[in-house]
Amino acid sequence: MPRYALKVEYHGGPFSGWQRQSGQPSVQEAVEAALRKLEPGVQGIAAAGRTDAGVHATGQVAHVDLARDWDPFRLSEALNYHLKPAPVAVLAAARVNDDFHARFSAVERRYLFRLIARRAPLTHDAGLAWRVLNPLDADAMRAGAAHLVGHYDFTTFRSTICQAKTPVKTLDEITITEDVIPHGIEFRFALRARSFLHNQVRSIVGTLERVGAGAWTPDDVRSALDARSRAACGPVSPAEGLYLTGVRYEEDPFA
Amino acid sequence: MPRYALKVEYHGGPFSGWQRQSGQPSVQEAVEAALRKLEPGVQGIAAAGRTDAGVHATGQVAHVDLARDWDPFRLSEALNYHLKPAPVAVLAAARVNDDFHARFSAVERRYLFRLIARRAPLTHDAGLAWRVLNPLDADAMRAGAAHLVGHYDFTTFRSTICQAKTPVKTLDEITITEDVIPHGIEFRFALRARSFLHNQVRSIVGTLERVGAGAWTPDDVRSALDARSRAACGPVSPAEGLYLTGVRYEEDPFA
Repeated sequence: MPRYALKVEYHGGPFSGWQRQSGQPSVQEAVEAALRKLEPGVQGIAAAGRTDAGVHATGQVAHVDLARDWDPFRLSEALNYHLKPAPVAVLAAARVNDDFHARFSAVERRYLFRLIARRAPLTHDAGLAWRVLNPLDADAMRAGAAHLVGHYDFTTFRSTICQAKTPVKTLDEITITEDVIPHGIEFRFALRARSFLHNQVRSIVGTLERVGAGAWTPDDVRSALDARSRAACGPVSPAEGLYLTGVRYEEDPFA
Repeated sequence: MPRYALKVEYHGGPFSGWQRQSGQPSVQEAVEAALRKLEPGVQGIAAAGRTDAGVHATGQVAHVDLARDWDPFRLSEALNYHLKPAPVAVLAAARVNDDFHARFSAVERRYLFRLIARRAPLTHDAGLAWRVLNPLDADAMRAGAAHLVGHYDFTTFRSTICQAKTPVKTLDEITITEDVIPHGIEFRFALRARSFLHNQVRSIVGTLERVGAGAWTPDDVRSALDARSRAACGPVSPAEGLYLTGVRYEEDPFA
């Protein structure tokens, strides 16, 4: 059976997360339901990142085996037709080799976190960013983030229900940019690693927000990391600011 | 009675427009209802731009006379408290002179139109931009737009129900920028004028989209303008891509 990779974008708001769960709306089930409209017997799909409830994606990657030989462009158009009106879109489809696995072949994941500091509530960005009322010091957050880039035991920054075999990961990048928005500042955190622990990005951003607010010093982040204890973590930031923006493979299936 | 200017942001989706209309949800009514929670006897408010159904704002300006002497920051905070959960936010409030009028004192309005060209449906930007399926040529749209900047009779580009005394207006700027987004291109049209005719921005963008698609030449825009006939206009673009981004006064009330 020919195997296809799908690049998927979604608004996480209405979903209990990527992964299928009985009785709850999931992105996986939405995509699989669209696939069943094309091929009733289609098997389940696997994704690079099993995003949590409310987490968004602009570059999730999944793979599926289909019985028919589909033109990739027609496949993505047909899936988008059947996905409506769910806020899930197939950005691209590509034929891949049988040994391609969306999750196990991935060599890098990228996440974006949108954090907006302003007094007024969000309107257009409601549900699409985390809003805080206090101003934030970007340079302090950058100094705190610098302690986390590298090869460390991230026990402090992973959920207690994380199922990864080891808490030791290499975090390759945290870049924080600032943009002026109407009567506020938007901070964008870009994180990059081979793989992430459960809640790692939200734990890091929630902790760095405390640094930006002045409640923590940048060096407190180092102490929290060194503690290797979940209790040392700052508050976990809400899901609505988090986006899975990309997954890298040795060879880009969509190139 | 002290007069206050309010800078207002809103998602136009749930509203029949800025202006109060009996039996329909309007942004004006939402703001007035919040004001009545503070001062039950408050009179109606006036705004710089009476945006249509579905049109958004990030910089609408309105004014109101209040009985009490409010601290501007506390006024905006109290209004935002009472506006919840409507997607309307007061970004700033300011005490202004009695001769300040949000509409008649305005010397310039700025609009933004977001147009996204891509095959896949929008997810996060659904309702916040106009999506077209065909690719668009930005330089062709810029060449078409250049015919419209200046002092002209804009009869072609105004709604037949426009109530302005004259169709002659000066359009000071149309700037078109491009940004790559996941598997698509976002075009942002920034327009600036002392005042606009009814549906002028949407008529211009809808026409320029035809130029970008190659269905019209840039010079066809000149011919349409010269025709001084509504029938010569291209299709009117949908409201969901349009944002009132700012209003300028001789003196900035919010500076």
